[in-house]
Amino acid sequence: MTVPKSFRRVVIENVDPEINGGRFAITRMTGESVWVAADIFADGHDVLGAALQYRKESEKSWKEVPLLLINNDRWEGQFKVATPGKYFYTLRGWVDPFKTWSRDLAKKAAAGQDLSLDLKAGAQLLLAAAKRASTSDAGVLREVAEKFSKLDGADGQGALDLAQYEDLNLLMSAYRNRTADTIYGNELAVRVDRQRARFSSWYEMFPRSCTTTPERRGTLRDCAEQVEYVAKMGFDVLYLPPIHPIGMTERKGKNNSTTPAPSDPGSPWAIGSKQGGHKSIHPELGTLSDLQALREKAQQYGIELALDLAYQCSPDHPYVKEHREWFRSRPDGSVQYAENPPKKYQDIYPLDFENEHYPALAEELKSVVLFWISHGIRIFRVDNPHTKPFAFWEWLIGEIKSEFPEVIFLAEAFTRPKVMYQLAKLGFTQSYTYFAWKNTKAELTEYFTEITQPPVREFFRPNLWPNTPDILNEYLQKGGRPAFIARLVLAATLGANYGIYGPPFELCENKPVREGSEEYLDSEKYQIRLWHRTYCVAA
Amino acid sequence: MTVPKSFRRVVIENVDPEINGGRFAITRMTGESVWVAADIFADGHDVLGAALQYRKESEKSWKEVPLLLINNDRWEGQFKVATPGKYFYTLRGWVDPFKTWSRDLAKKAAAGQDLSLDLKAGAQLLLAAAKRASTSDAGVLREVAEKFSKLDGADGQGALDLAQYEDLNLLMSAYRNRTADTIYGNELAVRVDRQRARFSSWYEMFPRSCTTTPERRGTLRDCAEQVEYVAKMGFDVLYLPPIHPIGMTERKGKNNSTTPAPSDPGSPWAIGSKQGGHKSIHPELGTLSDLQALREKAQQYGIELALDLAYQCSPDHPYVKEHREWFRSRPDGSVQYAENPPKKYQDIYPLDFENEHYPALAEELKSVVLFWISHGIRIFRVDNPHTKPFAFWEWLIGEIKSEFPEVIFLAEAFTRPKVMYQLAKLGFTQSYTYFAWKNTKAELTEYFTEITQPPVREFFRPNLWPNTPDILNEYLQKGGRPAFIARLVLAATLGANYGIYGPPFELCENKPVREGSEEYLDSEKYQIRLWHRTYCVAA
Repeated sequence: MTVPKSFRRVVIENVDPEINGGRFAITRMTGESVWVAADIFADGHDVLGAALQYRKESEKSWKEVPLLLINNDRWEGQFKVATPGKYFYTLRGWVDPFKTWSRDLAKKAAAGQDLSLDLKAGAQLLLAAAKRASTSDAGVLREVAEKFSKLDGADGQGALDLAQYEDLNLLMSAYRNRTADTIYGNELAVRVDRQRARFSSWYEMFPRSCTTTPERRGTLRDCAEQVEYVAKMGFDVLYLPPIHPIGMTERKGKNNSTTPAPSDPGSPWAIGSKQGGHKSIHPELGTLSDLQALREKAQQYGIELALDLAYQCSPDHPYVKEHREWFRSRPDGSVQYAENPPKKYQDIYPLDFENEHYPALAEELKSVVLFWISHGIRIFRVDNPHTKPFAFWEWLIGEIKSEFPEVIFLAEAFTRPKVMYQLAKLGFTQSYTYFAWKNTKAELTEYFTEITQPPVREFFRPNLWPNTPDILNEYLQKGGRPAFIARLVLAATLGANYGIYGPPFELCENKPVREGSEEYLDSEKYQIRLWHRTYCVAA
Repeated sequence: MTVPKSFRRVVIENVDPEINGGRFAITRMTGESVWVAADIFADGHDVLGAALQYRKESEKSWKEVPLLLINNDRWEGQFKVATPGKYFYTLRGWVDPFKTWSRDLAKKAAAGQDLSLDLKAGAQLLLAAAKRASTSDAGVLREVAEKFSKLDGADGQGALDLAQYEDLNLLMSAYRNRTADTIYGNELAVRVDRQRARFSSWYEMFPRSCTTTPERRGTLRDCAEQVEYVAKMGFDVLYLPPIHPIGMTERKGKNNSTTPAPSDPGSPWAIGSKQGGHKSIHPELGTLSDLQALREKAQQYGIELALDLAYQCSPDHPYVKEHREWFRSRPDGSVQYAENPPKKYQDIYPLDFENEHYPALAEELKSVVLFWISHGIRIFRVDNPHTKPFAFWEWLIGEIKSEFPEVIFLAEAFTRPKVMYQLAKLGFTQSYTYFAWKNTKAELTEYFTEITQPPVREFFRPNLWPNTPDILNEYLQKGGRPAFIARLVLAATLGANYGIYGPPFELCENKPVREGSEEYLDSEKYQIRLWHRTYCVAA
C-alpha cells in the first residue's frame, strides 16, 4: 500500500453519550444541557485543543464550544438544547503549535535559557496565522511578530509577557490552522422533547364508564365532567383507551367471554365497524366536537388528552373490505386473525407489514396520527408496538416528529428488555416498564439501577404504572389499601413519569378474574363499570 | 420521506468483541477460538436464527457457523483461527418462518386443535423452499409437501412426526430464503499471531558488555557465547539494544555526561555515524554474518533474536546529509534536536513526520524493517513509538504483517494509558506496561484488573518488565535480593509475556545514579560493564 500522504494526529474516541455507535439519538428535554465527554489525545507531547460542535437539524453551520481536559486524556463540554426537535453534535480536536510553543517557552524561560531562536520560531507562527486572519487582525499579528524578533533572547520575562498576552492568544486561537483537525467520524443526534415528555402523570379512564346509571353509557361529555376530579389528584395527562367504533363480529362479552350478550359493548381494542375505523369516534361516545370540548376542558385544568394508537382491526373494520391486501390470508382464503398458539383472538385482525403493499399501509397509518393531530391531540399511547416492525416505527415517528416535534408517543411494549429498549431508541418518547412486577426492595433496586444508568438512561424514559387494564398484579390483589398506597408513592417518586388506571386504582379494586390471573374480574375492557356512581362524583 | 419499501426485521447489536465500533481488530493466537456474542432480536414472537460468518483475509467467501441463543436475546458462537494473519467476522440473523410454523403447530397439536389449514400453510412453505433447492432436494420437499396436504387435520402426532423430521428441517434450513436476513453492518477483524506473540520471556543484554576484560569490548560473537546461559534461565527471546554505528557529535559520556572521554562508547540509541545508519552493524560489534551466527546459535537453544527499532538519528547519521528534508529546522537553519524543555538531547535528531516528504521517509523506515527481516529477524522492540504519528505505525505494521504475519512488534511506550492502548489497537503485538511501578497489592490488583478485562484484553498484550536500562525502580533499589525475586515471580506469573534487563537484574544491581532517580549508576547505556567477568560466565 502506498503511504497515505497526510494523516491527522489527534484521536477522538470513546465518546459519551453515543448510542450504538451513533446509530440512535439520545433524548433530552428542552432547557437541559447535553454533557459530552471523549478521550482525545495524540502522539508526542504537544498541547492539544478540542471543541464540541452542535447544531439544530434545521441549521447548516455548527456552533462551537470548547472542550476542557478533565484528566487522563478525558475531555468534557456541554451545550444547551432550547427547543423540541433534533440536534446534532460532534467533536473536533487538534494539535496546537502556538500553545505548545508557549508552554515550552515558559519552561525554557524558567530555566534561564536563551530564547532568541524560540522567539523567532514564535514569530513564524504569528506570521503564518496572519495569513489566515482578517486584514486588521493580520496587522496586529505582524506587529507582535516584529516585537518577538526584536526581543532580547535573555529577557525571559519580556518574552513571556508578550507570548502570554491574552488578546494574542485569542487571535492565535481564532486564526489557527484548522486543516489538520481531527473531526469525529459520527454526527450524533439528540431528540429534544418538551418537558411533559420527561415529567408527566397519567390517568387512564374508560369514557364509557363515566356514568352513574346502567341505563346510559358514559360519553366524552360525561368524561369532561370528571376532569376536575382527575386534576385534583394531580394528573396532567388524561389517557383514553380507543374511542373508535367497535366490531360486532366475534365480539367478546363480559370477562372475555366468546358468547356476548347483545348489550355487551365489546373491547375498545377491537377497532372498526360499519361506523368507521381509526379516524372515527364511536357514536355512543360522541363526536369530534365533543372530543374538542373535552380537550378544552382538560386544558383549563392543565391536563392534556392522550389517545390510544392500536394498529389492529376488528373483522368489521372498513380496511378489511377496502384493503384486503393489508391483511394476511389463511390457506382457505380467510383473513388470518391474531394468534398466540394455542390461543386464538378471532376478534382481532393484525395488519400485515410484510408484503409489497406495505408503503400504502404505512402512509395510511401515518394519516391516522395526522388526523388526530389535526384535532388537537399531541400525546399517543401506542398499543403493542413490539408486534409491528421496528423500521415502521422509526419511519412513522420520524415523519410525525419532523413536523410536530411536540408529539409524545408512549410505547406499551411489555416484552423482552432489549425489544423495549430498541423501541425507545428508534423514537418512542416514553416507555411502559416492568415496574408493575418489581415489588421487593431487591427487585426495585436492581431494575432502577439498570434503567437509570448509561446507556439506558440516555434513550429510555420510563413511565411507571402500578396497574393497567391488563395488569392487576398479585401485590395489589393481596395487599389491600396499603399496597395501593405504597405502589402509588413508588411510581410517583421512582421516576418522573407515572400513571394509574383509575378509578379501579383509587378504589383499590383488587379482585382478579380468577386465582393466578392478573386480569380484573368484570374488567372494563368488556363491560361498563359504574365506578362513578359509588365514588368519583362524590369526591 | 417516502416509506422505505423493504426493511429487515432482525436487529443485531452490542456485538462482543468489537473495538471502537469495528475500527480496530482484536488479537488472538493461532489455535485459539474467537467467541462472539451479540444481542439479536426482532419484533413479534417469531422464531429467529443467527449465524457467525468468518473468513481469512485471503479468502473471498465466508464460512458460517450457527449462533446459539443463550438467554435474554443474547446469542453466542465461535470459530477457530489456525494461522497467523488477518481474519474477519460478522453476523447474520433472520426470522425463520418454518421453525415458527413448526413451533406453533406443536402448540396447537398439544391443544388438540384441528391442523388442516396449518398443514396447508406448512406445505406452502415447503413448496417455496423447493423453488430455491437443487433438483433432487426440490423433489424431496415437494413430496413431503404432498404428504402434508394429505394428512388428516386431526392427526396431531402424524403432523408433528412429519414436521419435526430431522432431514426435512435440514433441508428447510439449507434452502431458507436468505434475502431478508439482517447482516451486521461491521466486518470485524482479528489479528492472529503466532504463539510467541502471546507467550514469551525476554532477556535484554548489551552485546558490548559481553566481555571479561576492559581491554576488549564484547561483540556479537561474544554474545553468542552467552546464549546457553540465557537459555538455562528459561528465556526464549534475546533482545539486543540498537547494534548500529553510534554518532560522535554530542556523544554522551559515563552517566550521561556531556563531556565524554575519548574511549566512551556512546549510547546505542544515538544511531548513525559515517559507518552507517539503521541498516548497518557497529563495526566493533561485528558483521551481518556474526549476527547470523548469533541468530543460529540462539535458535539451537529455542531462542529468537529481537532487534531494537529506534527511529531517531545521531547528528552523524547519513540521513542528516542525504535527507536533510526529513528533519526539522530551527530558525537559524540548524537541525532541531530532541527536547523536553528545559532538557535538550543534542545527540538525538528526531525525524519529522509532518511535511510533504513524509511518504519517502515512511518508505525508508519500512525498508529498515524489511532489511532486518531479510536477515532473519522477526521480532522488533520499538523504541518510543508514542513520539511518532499513530498513522505511521498503523501503515508500517500493516505493511509488514501483510507480508510477514509472523513478525512481532513490542511497543516501548511508557506514556499515558490511552496512548499505550491506541498503539496496541493499531497493530503492536505486545506492549510494555506500568508493571515496573505497580508494587503494592492494591496497585497490582487494580492494574491487572484493568488490563485483563474487556475491552483492553482484546487488543493489548502486556509484557511485564521489572527493570529496563531506563528503569531501576525504588522497590528494587531498596528491597535487596528478595525484591528482585518477588518482582521476577510476579512478572513471570501475572502475564504470559515478561522480560528482564540482565545481567544487572540477576546480579541484583540496585544502585541508582543518584537518590530519587530511576537511572542506573554507571549505566550500560553509556559505558561498558564487566558483568560477565564477575558472574555470568561462571554460571
